Amino acid sequence: MNEFELIERIFVQMQSAQSLSNNVEKGIGDDAAVIALPVGARLVSCIDTLVQGRHFSADWEQVNKLAFAIGYKAVAVNVSDIAAMGATPHSILLALALPKRLANEKWLTEFAKGLFHACQLFGVALIGGDTTRSDSLILSVSAQGLLAADTPAVYRSGAQVGDKIYVSGALGDAAYALKYPEIAVGIELAHRLHMPTPRIALGAALAKIGATAMIDISDGLYQDLGHICQQSRVGMRLNLEQLPTSKPLANVDLSERLLCQLAGGDDYELAFTLPADIEPPVSNNTPVTYIGDVIALIDNKDSSIDNVTYRRPQLYYQGQPVTPTHPAPFSIWPNLTGYQHFAG
Amino acid sequence: MNEFELIERIFVQMQSAQSLSNNVEKGIGDDAAVIALPVGARLVSCIDTLVQGRHFSADWEQVNKLAFAIGYKAVAVNVSDIAAMGATPHSILLALALPKRLANEKWLTEFAKGLFHACQLFGVALIGGDTTRSDSLILSVSAQGLLAADTPAVYRSGAQVGDKIYVSGALGDAAYALKYPEIAVGIELAHRLHMPTPRIALGAALAKIGATAMIDISDGLYQDLGHICQQSRVGMRLNLEQLPTSKPLANVDLSERLLCQLAGGDDYELAFTLPADIEPPVSNNTPVTYIGDVIALIDNKDSSIDNVTYRRPQLYYQGQPVTPTHPAPFSIWPNLTGYQHFAG
Repeated sequence: MNEFELIERIFVQMQSAQSLSNNVEKGIGDDAAVIALPVGARLVSCIDTLVQGRHFSADWEQVNKLAFAIGYKAVAVNVSDIAAMGATPHSILLALALPKRLANEKWLTEFAKGLFHACQLFGVALIGGDTTRSDSLILSVSAQGLLAADTPAVYRSGAQVGDKIYVSGALGDAAYALKYPEIAVGIELAHRLHMPTPRIALGAALAKIGATAMIDISDGLYQDLGHICQQSRVGMRLNLEQLPTSKPLANVDLSERLLCQLAGGDDYELAFTLPADIEPPVSNNTPVTYIGDVIALIDNKDSSIDNVTYRRPQLYYQGQPVTPTHPAPFSIWPNLTGYQHFAG
Repeated sequence: MNEFELIERIFVQMQSAQSLSNNVEKGIGDDAAVIALPVGARLVSCIDTLVQGRHFSADWEQVNKLAFAIGYKAVAVNVSDIAAMGATPHSILLALALPKRLANEKWLTEFAKGLFHACQLFGVALIGGDTTRSDSLILSVSAQGLLAADTPAVYRSGAQVGDKIYVSGALGDAAYALKYPEIAVGIELAHRLHMPTPRIALGAALAKIGATAMIDISDGLYQDLGHICQQSRVGMRLNLEQLPTSKPLANVDLSERLLCQLAGGDDYELAFTLPADIEPPVSNNTPVTYIGDVIALIDNKDSSIDNVTYRRPQLYYQGQPVTPTHPAPFSIWPNLTGYQHFAG
């Protein structure tokens, strides 16, 4: 059996164990998949790539050890994008660029287990894919979700002055785990980096109650809220002492912790805005925290903090304005920008 | 301006020049795209990856020179998969893993021009994407098409004994151009490798008149017809002297030419089966040629030609059976399999 057949066998076997919903007329195995769509539904589509050495370790021993988590995460990060529109995830397609050293039954089986575990958890079906050989591991997943006819999608462009800003879960755990992998394992943060939880139910609930803007935090709160500022043509005031913090991270040095929470990335929490008279959904599983307010756009292009292409939120700590250079302990942030895909 | 912003600027500018159809509610620039769907439509989805050094040259000078063609081809190969289902292409998402040396305005602009040129030719909109840094150029495109409620999709699994086998266009040009790039330029075959023509109108017409099985030829006719044999549980008799051949390729040595036509790949023509009483569509742009017949499955697993996991068509040349080792001139085909993604 060649590697090509091996991959097909593993994926077709695991797919047949999937309970494909009735409306998947054709899944894996033809030129394309075919899905019957509910009347009036709108289609929500995205694509996201994980690259070895960027989104997970370049080290082959780590890549071997993390096969399950890599499969899981490739699904989760795309499902998170669908959730951030307020849509319900439906199906995914996988483009796998696979190095020869990973094209073995053990790695592929663990990877597929992680991928199908995520599919089952998030209610999506793997309906198609493509495998090619490459020198490093690169995974592109395209996800599709559905929005009912009467549910508006929540864009980045709808935030209004006076809206309150909220974020789900806790921030900074994944960034800290990436920066300090040995410490992170001890204090149980590693899973937050390797197996993030997309906030599907929260996203859908927010679309229904009238959230004005929403984004999933993949590149760090500071940069991602900046996208809402830019596309909604608003400013933001962010209160750093209100950022939701996990118990393990609460013990970390304040400046280091805030840097992870603002600029670390990989949180896959939802940041969103709601009119002041609408209360956010209450859930035991997915806490939601008020972190600031949408304010009018101030054109202060001369200030050091705002002299970037993307407008950024104004930062306050216990009522005092904070810039990347002033005052201590924030003065260790010379390049507060958020995760840069092209850094390094 | 960093590279990230450069890419956004180039793509957003070119996208705004696209005439997005009314039903794209949200294109590039949010967590995901949103599309309103026609009532009763079914969604057809696929994903395909082009890897530097596999699907186009590893040589940086070539990659620089071919920027336009690479952008075009990334769209065309996916549109071809949608066409092979009988569906009408609608939209694409692009995951671009980009090496630092290509992240400059000149290369990106040429690449985007080729991509949007293909989008316009094939009537698809670029609705989303993702850019990451990698060591070599890797492009994953996910395409979406639509099938009207009353049009059946054409799968690989519907071929019936007695059906006739047809193929569109001419075969082998791209494979020959890949193997002999210097000669190919002289005899005008290079464009068939770099800028293939997906057969959209033919695919849609075939779904309407009742084609029983269809596949696009990306890995070589021999292997791709094998997928129809396997999934339809039928055999095939293929008449090699009937394979459609372009004028430049007709002058090539017979054995070399047939090898390119059977096992070369990258044709992006449609191979399909029709009941004997249904005539194929006639078009000046897209000739269609009868190349063989669907026959009952013969379980000859001891024969050398059939001792592969995927069942393959039986080959005949001027009425005589041909195997990869007998007779001459076919005896130079020791490994007649079709393009292997994992070869090399």
